[in-house]
Amino acid sequence: MAPKLSVSPVTTALNAPAHAPATVLSEVYTSKPLSDVAAEHRNLSALQRARLQYNPRYNPVLADPAAVVLQQGQPTTAAFDQDHIAKLFPNLYGQPSLSFAKHVPSHFEPKTVGVVLSGGPAPGGHNVICGMFDFVSNLNPNSKLLGFRNGPDGLLNAEYVLLDADTVALYRNQGGFHMIGSGRTKIETPAQFDAVRNTVEQLDLDALVIVGGDDSNSNAMKIAEHFKQHQLKCCVNGAPKTIDNDLRNAQVQVSFGFDTAAKSYAESIASLAFDAVSARKAYHFVRVMGRSASHIALECALQTHPNLCFIGEEVKHNSTTLLDVVRTVVDLIQQRSLQGKNYGVIVLPEGLVEFMPDVEALIAELNEILAHAERSLSRQQITEKLNPRNAELFRNLPDAIANQLMLERDPHGNVQVAKIEAERLLIGMVSSRLAMLKKEGLYKGKFSGVPHYLGYEARCAMPSNFDANYTYGLGRVAAALCCNGKTGYIATLSNLTKPAEEWVPAGFPLTMMMNIERRHGKDSAVIKKMLVDLQGAPFTDFALKRESWKLNDEYRSPGTTQFWGPTADVVSMSLQLEASVTANQ
Amino acid sequence: MAPKLSVSPVTTALNAPAHAPATVLSEVYTSKPLSDVAAEHRNLSALQRARLQYNPRYNPVLADPAAVVLQQGQPTTAAFDQDHIAKLFPNLYGQPSLSFAKHVPSHFEPKTVGVVLSGGPAPGGHNVICGMFDFVSNLNPNSKLLGFRNGPDGLLNAEYVLLDADTVALYRNQGGFHMIGSGRTKIETPAQFDAVRNTVEQLDLDALVIVGGDDSNSNAMKIAEHFKQHQLKCCVNGAPKTIDNDLRNAQVQVSFGFDTAAKSYAESIASLAFDAVSARKAYHFVRVMGRSASHIALECALQTHPNLCFIGEEVKHNSTTLLDVVRTVVDLIQQRSLQGKNYGVIVLPEGLVEFMPDVEALIAELNEILAHAERSLSRQQITEKLNPRNAELFRNLPDAIANQLMLERDPHGNVQVAKIEAERLLIGMVSSRLAMLKKEGLYKGKFSGVPHYLGYEARCAMPSNFDANYTYGLGRVAAALCCNGKTGYIATLSNLTKPAEEWVPAGFPLTMMMNIERRHGKDSAVIKKMLVDLQGAPFTDFALKRESWKLNDEYRSPGTTQFWGPTADVVSMSLQLEASVTANQ
Repeated sequence: MAPKLSVSPVTTALNAPAHAPATVLSEVYTSKPLSDVAAEHRNLSALQRARLQYNPRYNPVLADPAAVVLQQGQPTTAAFDQDHIAKLFPNLYGQPSLSFAKHVPSHFEPKTVGVVLSGGPAPGGHNVICGMFDFVSNLNPNSKLLGFRNGPDGLLNAEYVLLDADTVALYRNQGGFHMIGSGRTKIETPAQFDAVRNTVEQLDLDALVIVGGDDSNSNAMKIAEHFKQHQLKCCVNGAPKTIDNDLRNAQVQVSFGFDTAAKSYAESIASLAFDAVSARKAYHFVRVMGRSASHIALECALQTHPNLCFIGEEVKHNSTTLLDVVRTVVDLIQQRSLQGKNYGVIVLPEGLVEFMPDVEALIAELNEILAHAERSLSRQQITEKLNPRNAELFRNLPDAIANQLMLERDPHGNVQVAKIEAERLLIGMVSSRLAMLKKEGLYKGKFSGVPHYLGYEARCAMPSNFDANYTYGLGRVAAALCCNGKTGYIATLSNLTKPAEEWVPAGFPLTMMMNIERRHGKDSAVIKKMLVDLQGAPFTDFALKRESWKLNDEYRSPGTTQFWGPTADVVSMSLQLEASVTANQ
Repeated sequence: MAPKLSVSPVTTALNAPAHAPATVLSEVYTSKPLSDVAAEHRNLSALQRARLQYNPRYNPVLADPAAVVLQQGQPTTAAFDQDHIAKLFPNLYGQPSLSFAKHVPSHFEPKTVGVVLSGGPAPGGHNVICGMFDFVSNLNPNSKLLGFRNGPDGLLNAEYVLLDADTVALYRNQGGFHMIGSGRTKIETPAQFDAVRNTVEQLDLDALVIVGGDDSNSNAMKIAEHFKQHQLKCCVNGAPKTIDNDLRNAQVQVSFGFDTAAKSYAESIASLAFDAVSARKAYHFVRVMGRSASHIALECALQTHPNLCFIGEEVKHNSTTLLDVVRTVVDLIQQRSLQGKNYGVIVLPEGLVEFMPDVEALIAELNEILAHAERSLSRQQITEKLNPRNAELFRNLPDAIANQLMLERDPHGNVQVAKIEAERLLIGMVSSRLAMLKKEGLYKGKFSGVPHYLGYEARCAMPSNFDANYTYGLGRVAAALCCNGKTGYIATLSNLTKPAEEWVPAGFPLTMMMNIERRHGKDSAVIKKMLVDLQGAPFTDFALKRESWKLNDEYRSPGTTQFWGPTADVVSMSLQLEASVTANQ
């Protein structure tokens, strides 16, 4: 257990309005404590208590913070759009990569380090903080770790808590981001950058770690550049978080939370599959999180062998239409029904319909029509205005989905394609099509579709041993970068299919993974998302096996995440498959 | 591992039509094997393989099947409607309860025993079969265990498989009912009873075990009586299954599957709770399985401390209306929003709306109106025909729910109240009410409701150690009853909060737990369901604590089911609380 830092009450700026510079930092006051430690402890389950005792495993090179030495590699460039990105980060572009080594311990002055959790929660967030806490307090017991409240808002409004050993001890290896909360605010405007700078200056921060996905880490880089430009001492570094696993590249082997979340969804999908084949009367349509990238759907398919699994990237690559997908599902159901199997499991990625050209065309025309309509139109009236192709699709949509598209609009008046519950859409369309085939005598089975959406259930699950070790290690790496005066880096660990003691810590400039994308009509430097590679090992393995899963029931259960026993350290299949390719290269 | 029985191909009657007596049993043929053992094994995950090696723990009195002796207790009566039930079971009513003891082993001739899985799957079903298999094959290696396919249909149509050691070995401690499948057919008509008798006679069965819920065990009793009346040697005994945990009484301490399923739902609810407090922007409305009884919702609440949890039995007892429930939820949201908390978790039992007097009244009048309508009516037209009270409720329903009630009817033309997704109903109504309050300046928060239904995800989960031990033990107890010529009993284990080696095996006449209920206009002898006792220890504990959960976030996570480590044998809170009362009496 880490040494105890000075216990301190919660400190917040006096009700500073959101996004405004916090100018009243001297008037800090003591509000109710972050958490009533005794009360929190009373509410812990036996498993939560047992997990508090788990000591994350890490590379011994990270063991003595005062002995960590960062060795510089070659100067770096960006993977894409080098010149443009170099211009956007004139102070920090091209920094060398950093590897870790152990020297004789030096003396370190106490550090004041801040941490922000940004975006959707992911299993392991608390351990990043624990890793940072242990590192900075081991380095010098007078160090301070400040947790900014509720994401970037805490930075803007100088709302933070001083994290003491008692508080941190309550969250070791626990799920959730609730130790300090998370938020989605982006630091974009000059006033926001000023507010952040003001907070950091007032608190005399030596460093700041932003734990987040691609957007949040891109933001971290911009803040690092801004600080450098204004000659602040404060370093800014990032840690790669997102269950979607799309913050990944040559430097980042996996983003944290994916392992636990995918295991959780896969366990549910497997249970549904066994339910299907046990009760033999329903098709389960399971949508899983992952809007831009289908890594989660792919991992779940590899883990559970569903009868069908769609991959957004493949749908996009093949320009597969919604009607194509309906046909594929209907074909499967017809074929299985000939074998007496009127049940099955079908997995869909969250963003599925957004990748389909026919849906895209329909939505575009709907937006046009609805924007120019002077009064509310009936479905029939809208259908008549659509071009014949779009009209056919619109006619085929289940009532609930068509109504939702017509009635629910986003603040810009646009149809909300992201709100479509693809599993319900498919069940409705498949059901209609099967009813027609039945009339024609081409289908004799009985169809019952059950919709499921697996998303929020796993973002705050207790982290697997993998994620607990990974995030704790990332926390130590991030703290090491901070305490050694490095800025604009992302903390990484690689060699992840080996025991955690052999994972290799490193720091890479965030600019290395950036490219230029159009955002809100402007060029912006952002970390490039990693989508499913249709030539990559996980997809190739899936493509090889999936035909056999269609008619045979080869369902497989990874089971619930285990923290002890022979399977406690099994890592995701995607990671194993990718690592095996790297090893063979 | 059990000794290997003779390996045998799958045996089924030649496409006998459903429910018809299988008269062609001599023409059995070899179809494709039940499962391709090698292929199945290839598809097992590391955890599945590890669990295959788990040896369920049980009372040593059950260890040597040939040494088990059943000791008769006092003659029994029924808990309710004794005379009526005595008349319905003239051959078997009043049998003594049975306790287990160990004597010097005797020689037993080989037995042929059948097993049927009936109704919805529940974690542990496979282990009942494994326990039976080990017992009968240890008793005499020439014994045979036949698994009837897909529930009672397998009995009617003489579709069965001879379960050999290789097959059984693939399903030890695994989730699902897919080793032999399950089904919901009821044996009711004289022709059905004849068909079952025919199957049993043709196969020369010594005994039959029916693994099911209250209905299936009631059915088992009727079959036992029928066999006795026709002087068949075949014994019929039951085992108590249902995740809902409503097959419970003075004899049955818990029904199997509840422990695992409730743990699985509770883990999801806890993750949603931590997601709520981490992201701070949504209310999660979680409906959990349990139509007649709210034991699952109650256990989940005790495990996770949601901000609100409704209990169907309390709603019914207090004649709480849907509008009352909406008001309660809205009040909570208003109060929490004053604390800056625009998030939370609300748990609902599956059958919630069916218990509400206002919903009941509306449905009754809707059924009348729709039955007499000559053409399809608009929502407006229906509203005008309703009495003012019902009209108000109908007007307040979200569109999707109102449409569903108007359009989707069951085969008898009735409105399908059971199909109402209560979580979506509540989100819609609460959202409208909050929008009104906002206009009036009485609510300033931001409301976002996310619906969840947790049901099918856990019925086939891998059984917890508790359920693995419990079901394996029940299998051995059931087999012991069968092999000792007992019929009309349910297998039980009690003393369940102690180590599994101290669990007390027993057999109780199924008639003991029966009462008379009106079913389809006829008096029928059925096992009385155990509902949540509003005076019982679990509800009392919940009622004591729930006020504090409303505004404080005292969320608690039981975590994923563990098979190893310090928490692997923690049993459900409901069981612990009930046992503590019994211990104090």
